[in-house]
Amino acid sequence: MNVIARNICSAALRVARQEPSVKSFCKTLPNFQPARFKSNAVTFPAGLIFRQLFDYQSYTYTYLLGDDETTEAVLIDPVIELVKRDARVIEDLGLKLIFALNTHVHADHVTGTGELKKLYPMCRSVIAEVSKAKADVHVVEGDAITFGRFTLKVVSTPGHTEGCQTYILHQNGKSVIAFTGDALLIRGCGRTDFQQGDSAQLYDSVHDKILSLPPQTFLYPAHDYAGQTVTTVEEELRCNPRLTKSKEEFIEIMKNLNLPYPKAIDRALPANMVCGVFDTPTS
Amino acid sequence: MNVIARNICSAALRVARQEPSVKSFCKTLPNFQPARFKSNAVTFPAGLIFRQLFDYQSYTYTYLLGDDETTEAVLIDPVIELVKRDARVIEDLGLKLIFALNTHVHADHVTGTGELKKLYPMCRSVIAEVSKAKADVHVVEGDAITFGRFTLKVVSTPGHTEGCQTYILHQNGKSVIAFTGDALLIRGCGRTDFQQGDSAQLYDSVHDKILSLPPQTFLYPAHDYAGQTVTTVEEELRCNPRLTKSKEEFIEIMKNLNLPYPKAIDRALPANMVCGVFDTPTS
Repeated sequence: MNVIARNICSAALRVARQEPSVKSFCKTLPNFQPARFKSNAVTFPAGLIFRQLFDYQSYTYTYLLGDDETTEAVLIDPVIELVKRDARVIEDLGLKLIFALNTHVHADHVTGTGELKKLYPMCRSVIAEVSKAKADVHVVEGDAITFGRFTLKVVSTPGHTEGCQTYILHQNGKSVIAFTGDALLIRGCGRTDFQQGDSAQLYDSVHDKILSLPPQTFLYPAHDYAGQTVTTVEEELRCNPRLTKSKEEFIEIMKNLNLPYPKAIDRALPANMVCGVFDTPTS
Repeated sequence: MNVIARNICSAALRVARQEPSVKSFCKTLPNFQPARFKSNAVTFPAGLIFRQLFDYQSYTYTYLLGDDETTEAVLIDPVIELVKRDARVIEDLGLKLIFALNTHVHADHVTGTGELKKLYPMCRSVIAEVSKAKADVHVVEGDAITFGRFTLKVVSTPGHTEGCQTYILHQNGKSVIAFTGDALLIRGCGRTDFQQGDSAQLYDSVHDKILSLPPQTFLYPAHDYAGQTVTTVEEELRCNPRLTKSKEEFIEIMKNLNLPYPKAIDRALPANMVCGVFDTPTS
């Protein structure tokens, strides 16, 4: 297990949230007021194949989305070591991969996009133009990635890195699922102390572009360190220990996280600038 | 990370599946025929709150299901070390826990049901009568666990242990989600070499009770060791490397897995016979 990654998260959460002990936590339960959270499980579009996949090493979520009619599919944030697993799922579900997207230039793992292009010659890699990373398709705010009957809208959400993007799936003109990368994590957010990180910018990005979506929009992040798999706009507006704070308080929290230097960054950054095929075996 | 658990799985998968190398695997892709998998994401019942949670230590999935109107909720297979995390999610979603279910007497982790009952006095623990484990409610095939407008039907699926049960959520009389415990895993199944395990019985249980459900039924297992989160009846009927074999071949595969003695079994079994509160701190 990536103990460092877990420690980073635990420490960060403790700082931001000042979690009560189990004992004091128990005491809060009898007074608990139901938040009347409304489920929106039914809003997943008909005909969408959706799979969430996880990397136990870097705690990264990879997402597979496909159209069950045309079989066209996209992968968001694949991990190089798990390309074979991802390809097996794609094959099992009868899909053909046409896009491999990164939400940003990752610092904690090497992207699988380059290796996937070797397996699927029709697959094109996608990343933000502003990232300056190599890819087949460079996108900016407002662009759309289409697979079959579905479209992911590109929304620029800088702050963790300057090239961070959120990919939003719409149905009937309404957002139903947003893939938030490291901009917004479940009850957290990406760090802002390297790679052009900017806390004020991250705060604005998340509030203006993600937490302003309809409350029942599902949010799927690039990572989780507590075994959680999904959240919603409504939940994060109410429960995110950092982003429910004022901008000034948020900046102060982010300034004092005191996180260690990311273990994989020196290997990951140069590789991810070239689709993950830098200094890796060619198969 | 629980390296032993991962190794068990990897070894087992290699034996059963005879996975090709990356190179030979690549060669298969150009000839690949789409399986025309039909998505069924829309069949999640309206008003159902559903969360999948993961334990990085024992690779266990815990499931939270709630009714967004009545706020009644159930947890399936909670893990003792993560009771506080689970309670936080329950609280954040405005739910009240009325049942904590185990699919079976686990050998790889201690159940969180006993600790959850301390946090939620109205919560009742549930397990199979045949397991002989302590619980508030002992259930048998055909019983139903109701929370708000939803009902989980109890189906007996022995073979991994004699008390293994699958909990099936229905909508309009049709199964939509089955929580299969260790009876059926994604592209695998639970081992059968301890705790009254019986390969022939497991084969029959899975085929008669799980793989006979409508093809688009979602299957959520108690574990995964490859970062996968969900499967369907259709997929497992087509892709499960063990259960697509004849019963005789399946028994032979299970006989030759040569898995190591489960690391946590000596602590987990006695604790799980008494709701997980054996020799654990009282707060």
